[in-house]
Amino acid sequence: MMRRLLSTTLAITTGCLLATGAVAQSDEDQIDYRQAVFTLVGANFGPMGDMAQGEIDYDAEQFARNAARVADLSRMAKEGFEGGPHDGDTDAKPAIWDEWDRFSEGMTHFETAAQELAEATEGGDRELADVQDRFMRVAESCQSCHDNYRDN
Amino acid sequence: MMRRLLSTTLAITTGCLLATGAVAQSDEDQIDYRQAVFTLVGANFGPMGDMAQGEIDYDAEQFARNAARVADLSRMAKEGFEGGPHDGDTDAKPAIWDEWDRFSEGMTHFETAAQELAEATEGGDRELADVQDRFMRVAESCQSCHDNYRDN
Repeated sequence: MMRRLLSTTLAITTGCLLATGAVAQSDEDQIDYRQAVFTLVGANFGPMGDMAQGEIDYDAEQFARNAARVADLSRMAKEGFEGGPHDGDTDAKPAIWDEWDRFSEGMTHFETAAQELAEATEGGDRELADVQDRFMRVAESCQSCHDNYRDN
Repeated sequence: MMRRLLSTTLAITTGCLLATGAVAQSDEDQIDYRQAVFTLVGANFGPMGDMAQGEIDYDAEQFARNAARVADLSRMAKEGFEGGPHDGDTDAKPAIWDEWDRFSEGMTHFETAAQELAEATEGGDRELADVQDRFMRVAESCQSCHDNYRDN
């Protein structure tokens, strides 16, 4: 009974998942995976940048929430590049795989910086001035990788 | 100096981010956001389903890692539907917004089930039999929402 329920539910659920490109195995799946990660990083990081620049009001709670999400997502970023280069619609430069160790170090730096920012903002009650340095470290890690490893 | 560095770095970084649809504000951005969340949920949940069904070998560490990611991602799922319905290429049914409280409850259920699964698998040393019930609860929460609120 349990086994049949499992099997039926998973068949349906997995069917739904596969329709959106579920299992990160093909080149296209890998590209979809990493682009999804960066779509979410960007959507969470963008408003933090607007706050840091004073373009929108600083909201310590939203800043902290977004920082936590960027930290969670940063742990998924590197795996989307594993096993490449991948054929498809991608701005990832071949240098990523030619210089994998250096690229990998940059990704680890992104993870660490994002984690430190999330910790610094935890509680959602910090002044912007107290978290701005850590925010900048994340922004710089984004930029450094984009400069070296991303087309356009 | 700090302000200028900040401004320059962010201009460049935000420029890169905007190119991939950074700030979840327009209808299209909201759709991109939630589809990115579910791409990543699926890519992490799919292999867990394969393990639960015995289609691939059970790997307790990978199972735990993926469970942690699904839990992290589950917290981002609902916000991609806020402020809708959104115009664009989407399988989200209008019923989501007609029955927002019920939909929202389902999302909270998904978050809770995913969090409980992540906790149950923590450490990466559990037997499949010990986590299968909690896995099924997440699968069922996926399926229930797909049945009610997703086209095709």
